[in-house]
Amino acid sequence: MAGTAERMASNQKQVAISEFFEKNKHFLGFDSLTRSLITAVKEAVDNSLDACEEARILPDIRVELTKIDGKKDIVELKTEDNGPGIPQRSIEKVFGQLLFGSRFHAIRQSRGQQGIGITGVVMYSQLTTGRKTHVRSKIATEASAALVDIGLDTRKNKATKSNETREIWEHEDGTLKEHGLEVTTRMKGKYQRGRQSVYQYLRMTSIVNPHADITFIDPDGERHHWPRVTERLPTKVESIKPHPHGIHLGTLQRMCSESKDSRMTVFLRGNFSGVSSRAAKELLQAAEIDEKMKPKSLKPDHYRALLEAFQGERMINEKPVKLLNPPTNCLSPIEELLIKKGLSKTIDSKFVTTMTRSPTVTQGNPYQVEVGLIFGEGMLADKPVEVLRFANRVPLMYQQGGCLLTKAIESVDWRQYGLDQAGGRGVPKGPAAILVHLASTNVQFTSEAKEALADNAEVMEEVRKALLEMGRGLRKHLEKKKKMAKTQEKFELVNDIIPAIAEKSAQILGRPVPDLSGSITKIMGAVIAETTTTWNKETKQTDVSITLFNYTSRARAYTLLVSWPERDGAAMEHNDLGGRKEATGVWAWKLETLDPGQTFVITYSLSGLERGDWTDTDVFYRGSQEVIGASKMDEKILEEIRRLEAVAAAPEETEHDDMDDMEQNPASPEIPPPTGQQTLFGGGE
Amino acid sequence: MAGTAERMASNQKQVAISEFFEKNKHFLGFDSLTRSLITAVKEAVDNSLDACEEARILPDIRVELTKIDGKKDIVELKTEDNGPGIPQRSIEKVFGQLLFGSRFHAIRQSRGQQGIGITGVVMYSQLTTGRKTHVRSKIATEASAALVDIGLDTRKNKATKSNETREIWEHEDGTLKEHGLEVTTRMKGKYQRGRQSVYQYLRMTSIVNPHADITFIDPDGERHHWPRVTERLPTKVESIKPHPHGIHLGTLQRMCSESKDSRMTVFLRGNFSGVSSRAAKELLQAAEIDEKMKPKSLKPDHYRALLEAFQGERMINEKPVKLLNPPTNCLSPIEELLIKKGLSKTIDSKFVTTMTRSPTVTQGNPYQVEVGLIFGEGMLADKPVEVLRFANRVPLMYQQGGCLLTKAIESVDWRQYGLDQAGGRGVPKGPAAILVHLASTNVQFTSEAKEALADNAEVMEEVRKALLEMGRGLRKHLEKKKKMAKTQEKFELVNDIIPAIAEKSAQILGRPVPDLSGSITKIMGAVIAETTTTWNKETKQTDVSITLFNYTSRARAYTLLVSWPERDGAAMEHNDLGGRKEATGVWAWKLETLDPGQTFVITYSLSGLERGDWTDTDVFYRGSQEVIGASKMDEKILEEIRRLEAVAAAPEETEHDDMDDMEQNPASPEIPPPTGQQTLFGGGE
Repeated sequence: MAGTAERMASNQKQVAISEFFEKNKHFLGFDSLTRSLITAVKEAVDNSLDACEEARILPDIRVELTKIDGKKDIVELKTEDNGPGIPQRSIEKVFGQLLFGSRFHAIRQSRGQQGIGITGVVMYSQLTTGRKTHVRSKIATEASAALVDIGLDTRKNKATKSNETREIWEHEDGTLKEHGLEVTTRMKGKYQRGRQSVYQYLRMTSIVNPHADITFIDPDGERHHWPRVTERLPTKVESIKPHPHGIHLGTLQRMCSESKDSRMTVFLRGNFSGVSSRAAKELLQAAEIDEKMKPKSLKPDHYRALLEAFQGERMINEKPVKLLNPPTNCLSPIEELLIKKGLSKTIDSKFVTTMTRSPTVTQGNPYQVEVGLIFGEGMLADKPVEVLRFANRVPLMYQQGGCLLTKAIESVDWRQYGLDQAGGRGVPKGPAAILVHLASTNVQFTSEAKEALADNAEVMEEVRKALLEMGRGLRKHLEKKKKMAKTQEKFELVNDIIPAIAEKSAQILGRPVPDLSGSITKIMGAVIAETTTTWNKETKQTDVSITLFNYTSRARAYTLLVSWPERDGAAMEHNDLGGRKEATGVWAWKLETLDPGQTFVITYSLSGLERGDWTDTDVFYRGSQEVIGASKMDEKILEEIRRLEAVAAAPEETEHDDMDDMEQNPASPEIPPPTGQQTLFGGGE
Repeated sequence: MAGTAERMASNQKQVAISEFFEKNKHFLGFDSLTRSLITAVKEAVDNSLDACEEARILPDIRVELTKIDGKKDIVELKTEDNGPGIPQRSIEKVFGQLLFGSRFHAIRQSRGQQGIGITGVVMYSQLTTGRKTHVRSKIATEASAALVDIGLDTRKNKATKSNETREIWEHEDGTLKEHGLEVTTRMKGKYQRGRQSVYQYLRMTSIVNPHADITFIDPDGERHHWPRVTERLPTKVESIKPHPHGIHLGTLQRMCSESKDSRMTVFLRGNFSGVSSRAAKELLQAAEIDEKMKPKSLKPDHYRALLEAFQGERMINEKPVKLLNPPTNCLSPIEELLIKKGLSKTIDSKFVTTMTRSPTVTQGNPYQVEVGLIFGEGMLADKPVEVLRFANRVPLMYQQGGCLLTKAIESVDWRQYGLDQAGGRGVPKGPAAILVHLASTNVQFTSEAKEALADNAEVMEEVRKALLEMGRGLRKHLEKKKKMAKTQEKFELVNDIIPAIAEKSAQILGRPVPDLSGSITKIMGAVIAETTTTWNKETKQTDVSITLFNYTSRARAYTLLVSWPERDGAAMEHNDLGGRKEATGVWAWKLETLDPGQTFVITYSLSGLERGDWTDTDVFYRGSQEVIGASKMDEKILEEIRRLEAVAAAPEETEHDDMDDMEQNPASPEIPPPTGQQTLFGGGE
């Protein structure tokens, strides 16, 4: 025994972070040859998208893969963007030093956060081929581009560089490249097609980044191009301060001891989001801390008391101190119409429904859930639905089983929404694809490879809610289809058989064929609406036509209403019948009395949209007799929309006593933004 | 645009590894309150087990959880072991510095590898409660124990310490503690019972560490004790050198440039496993490198050529250079009998089968797969089977869905082995539990939390093979049971009905009841063996009894054979019939002729075993007529066992031309070790 402990201790040494990740490169997504290549493309493209977004540039991204002749499983990856570029002096740190970056401490939505990604690619390339990564970078304020080869001294986590030079960078057509970045690297990797491939990653990326133009040259030289479908850049995200609900004791302790503020009230107001002057005072009162105390002088018991006040465990007048939610302008959701557009462009199908939840907060971190579902043709009916997972606009390609987003899908009983699912658990079967996007300032992945979201009960519940709501839209669609099909069948039967019988009888009896329109309506006994929404190539507009048949024996009077994408910038044209706006995105026509056997047609066109933006129109009615093919208008929902619109239109009338709260929280959490339209109507389906 | 790139670059800074893991503490397993507590216990206990194993001490481990009065979700964790302790000067680095440890560069099987675990616990405690971790350590060569409180300066990845002192450490009974470690830490956490709990983690740990004595005091003060079931320490594992098959170009480059060796042959022999003198020369010849060249002077093209020679892409005489497999004494499997013992102690059931594959190699890393299956009573039949995953003797509690071991189970069509499984995919249903253990020098997890294994096609295939082989054992067992049950039923029917009919007929006819034994055997037409294996409390032995009935109309002659745990140290006693040994673990009796209607009984007892070690005996026969309840002896298998035994007994007769290969590879891979007994017979089932 003697000396064992000493001997064991003497073998211990410090390991550099780069040695750690070199050994554990699979944590970064470098495991199989296929996945390693996808990871490399992903890190480069995510960086390009992040940089362009921050610099407010519409991204043009080009990815090229080349097999190296005669070398087994060695691939060269070249990516080029039109982003802001990286100043020469920063290149070596960005590419050659792990945990170096700008986004680690920033609280806002971004693809990269760790400062690991692209350095991991440089490291993996060097490890597997012994080669450095070639970087060409041009920033707008310099005439020439910087060129350099970057490697990594993993024992020290420091870049090694060589061949540093400057050069004019021209486009192929000879014009000067204003700004951008090009990365060329050679690595062990294997290109393959299929569900987990570079191609699929880029295709998925284009769905959730409709503002990006992406070109991919595969190793066979084939060129794939996903053009941008919108010129609108994602909302600009702002960094926010941490929210008291997400603070740990150790962090609070460190923030206090590093603070130079003169008094606690200033410290609380200046370093946290959601804390008004009044709240700061009340927090200190609840924690029994003197307002004038310096943050630096706080004692352990003070921290604990303050944290308890943050968490509502210490109260004022038996109530927790009221904190505002953090502002949500740190988030940039994809938005429903763009999801729809992306989904229907990528997968050819009939029915698309989406659902964007309002932003919310978990452990002080703002986040937002968006889901989409596409159902119909061109997909396999007896296979599990395709699951498309995204986090902060990045497609997640691996570890589907271990991901919170998948678990949320699996926890829904999809049978009630019309999909097959064994035992009401697991990924449902059917001709459908389900998309889930989580936007957050702090996406918690299960590992550095950022392929699966870690468990979090609140986020899980939020995703479930979005899915359930979307599921109801699907059920409605399927029920409507079924009902229409049944009525159609009956109608065709009646319309075929009755006249045939009448004719035959008349012939036999030698009498004239009787007028049957009354009989047919009597048998049908229904009012039917038939709606078509079609893209008109000539006019580049979406034509909508609604035909109302009265197949009952009495005259009927209705107001018909439709949902339309007013919020998304569409305009209604050729609406010859006039009508009136009932709320944003809701239009109504009061119809004349419709006699038995009569038909009424409404037509209009929607301009300002693109093909695939709007493929289905929801029709509602006011009136006593049911209309097959339309839904009865729920007046309460309409009321609610109008109320929200009124509130949103008059933000200065809200109850805030504290003006700086308004500045701090531009999207004030106490007034839900009127995102309801598509949801409340299950619209556009 | 101007200046954007500069502004963006100016925000970038270096992040310390400790800041990184503080922010991403969920990578380390600190996500939910429940899991955080399990992670903390796991890191402390894994460290204790590793330290004891390395110091060759039978571990006594005590874990105590205490709720802190009045504080919501704050738990104090105290762990104590009898390990070698940590010298005072090393404590702060071990507990207060991330990526500090002894196992990172060592190639051998161990629980911890990263130097992250326990420091992560210190960090999490400090973050959530603001408190330092209290450490008490006693090493054998010092009279008193060292005591110190350790925290972590996460901005610098350095320990902060306070209250350092020394003290005499006494056991409760007043005797001196010779050596050991005690860690006391307070953290945010939640204790709960169930499938994912501290209790379950410790229970599973005791299954795969039968040499450990573990005591757990839960927060309600209840004491749980898992005593050790064997005094045998796990095989001592040796560190090995890297194998050429697992080397990356970058690593080779670094090894060469850091080498002080005078010539390449010395370098290759001295720094790699599996490279003999001859192989070293051939590798250099294939790579066209001068043998006398200094490793330091190699050029990039040399590295590439040498790597190609390593990988068999450059050849000698059109053949790849032959390398030996790495030695496997760096692995410490649990071994079949101990798995069986552990499983049947923990889960009360009837049938246990296990399968240990021979060690093999993936990407230069030796590894070994062990599987176990328990089937029968006390388990739910209509639920998915319980999956027990282990890596290097550590239970994996989370991320089951994303783990290679689960995927391997899911990929087997268990229906052919008698378990329910929808569509022949996924975790099967049934009253069973499946255990999978991977022992490896380099377990590739999906993240630092070490809860799920990353994908690897070779390991996957190896696990599948083990499961399939084990599945065949299960099928055999179920078929045997079914056949026996049928015969039993028929026998009972015949034995009940025929005499009743005979009696009735005799009565009616007024005749005497005829002798029926001939008729009964004629109807049965079978030879039946009935075997019982029971634990005898009085004698502490396992009693085996085999009864052979001849229910045929002819005389029969047989040799009966049984499998018995000779390799595991059992002895056969009270074997009054004598017989002879056919191979290790196989005993045979040549029986006298058995006349129709006659019965023969063999009995013996097994000593040197414990309750649960041996619960079922496989019986084989030699003879022409089938014996229901026994299997026909496959002479080829017996031959094979004998051949392997002969080879193993005479290692000096092997064909190695190069003595140092023998030294380097004590478990030479060209002679499979005779682990076959349990497998070839499906024995003990």
